[in-house]
Amino acid sequence: MLLVHARTLDPLSRAVRLALGEKRAVFHVREALPFEADAGLLAVAPDGMTPVLVDDSWGHGATISEALAIFEYLEDLLPTPPLLPGGPLERAAVRAMTIRAIRTLGPIVDNVVHEKARKALARGGAPDTAILRQATLAATQTLDQIGRAAEAEGWIGGKKLSIADMVAAAHFSVLDYLDAVSWSSAPAGKDWYARLKQRPAFRPLLGDLLAGLSPPPHYGDLDF
Amino acid sequence: MLLVHARTLDPLSRAVRLALGEKRAVFHVREALPFEADAGLLAVAPDGMTPVLVDDSWGHGATISEALAIFEYLEDLLPTPPLLPGGPLERAAVRAMTIRAIRTLGPIVDNVVHEKARKALARGGAPDTAILRQATLAATQTLDQIGRAAEAEGWIGGKKLSIADMVAAAHFSVLDYLDAVSWSSAPAGKDWYARLKQRPAFRPLLGDLLAGLSPPPHYGDLDF
Repeated sequence: MLLVHARTLDPLSRAVRLALGEKRAVFHVREALPFEADAGLLAVAPDGMTPVLVDDSWGHGATISEALAIFEYLEDLLPTPPLLPGGPLERAAVRAMTIRAIRTLGPIVDNVVHEKARKALARGGAPDTAILRQATLAATQTLDQIGRAAEAEGWIGGKKLSIADMVAAAHFSVLDYLDAVSWSSAPAGKDWYARLKQRPAFRPLLGDLLAGLSPPPHYGDLDF
Repeated sequence: MLLVHARTLDPLSRAVRLALGEKRAVFHVREALPFEADAGLLAVAPDGMTPVLVDDSWGHGATISEALAIFEYLEDLLPTPPLLPGGPLERAAVRAMTIRAIRTLGPIVDNVVHEKARKALARGGAPDTAILRQATLAATQTLDQIGRAAEAEGWIGGKKLSIADMVAAAHFSVLDYLDAVSWSSAPAGKDWYARLKQRPAFRPLLGDLLAGLSPPPHYGDLDF
């Protein structure tokens, strides 16, 4: 059995769930406490970081940490459909695009999650609107670039759906949960995201809720 | 032909050179200006980041950026000897360890390079000794952990030499160039590093010099 230790507002937890869904794997999700030490998670990941994949098909509950390592593991284990498609060169382009998406979008998500979610759940004061404005601007610019790349090639890592799309879309889904994307300002990017949002693998993410923190009405809407 | 765009004090440039050396690949290195915009690099990498691998065996100078993507590309292209050895699970452990090494050692190297190299070459004032002391302490603690892992298993990603060793050792080699490791405080870690330093693939790195910035005498010494 495959089990993912995940957090609702962790983009890479979402990306791993998307990849497992696209691979049509049977898997379970265990949600760790959003911003606290979680005993169940700490038992498999001493650093307390999500996502972690546990695969007990090896007979001893093998644990795989680090999202990039999990994607490659899934590709080794369940090669069809490929999410690192093509030959060495195409695969390298997908990997580079994936890493770049994490580097660009990761800090934006961190800022938004801190201001809008952590503070709200910890009653830690009002969000800093200057930080949020800057984050929405940066997210929307990135969405615009992604949209252009997807318009030219089909998907952001090339002609086929890949891990790069899963990772970028997972970041945008967290930003959207916290209403921090200006979709109308990047129509090609919105089209790309809508295509991902409509895939069956995406559906479970849109149903996840964090107690005390509701997403905007358009979040789960496939025709947002 | 394989060409690496590299920087002497960039640990991941060093790690890619080590991986290519271990694969016994024929390759060339082009050094980019250490801390400045470099036209030759910008021609292949708009973000100006090293390392970049250019492989013109595809007939059109294919460019691969992001060190993790380059390692996987090399593994696809030149599978022997494997630097992501073993089955899916062992490979996942190597990848996770590699990412963890970058996350732990990357910021330490950044701090030391800024204080000891950037400032010196730009005549930007004296290094902040508190930052350097803290960095040396953190580096030495990590070296100690690495040493214990290597003592138990042989290498840090498992029983075989892997990308995880290349990446961690590359970071320590930059720290050592800038004399920021307390080798005697972590004897098992020193043994692990010495085993890597003695490999033929390591030799070219030890010969690299940055004008105006000499390494300490023990840097190139295989019996340091």
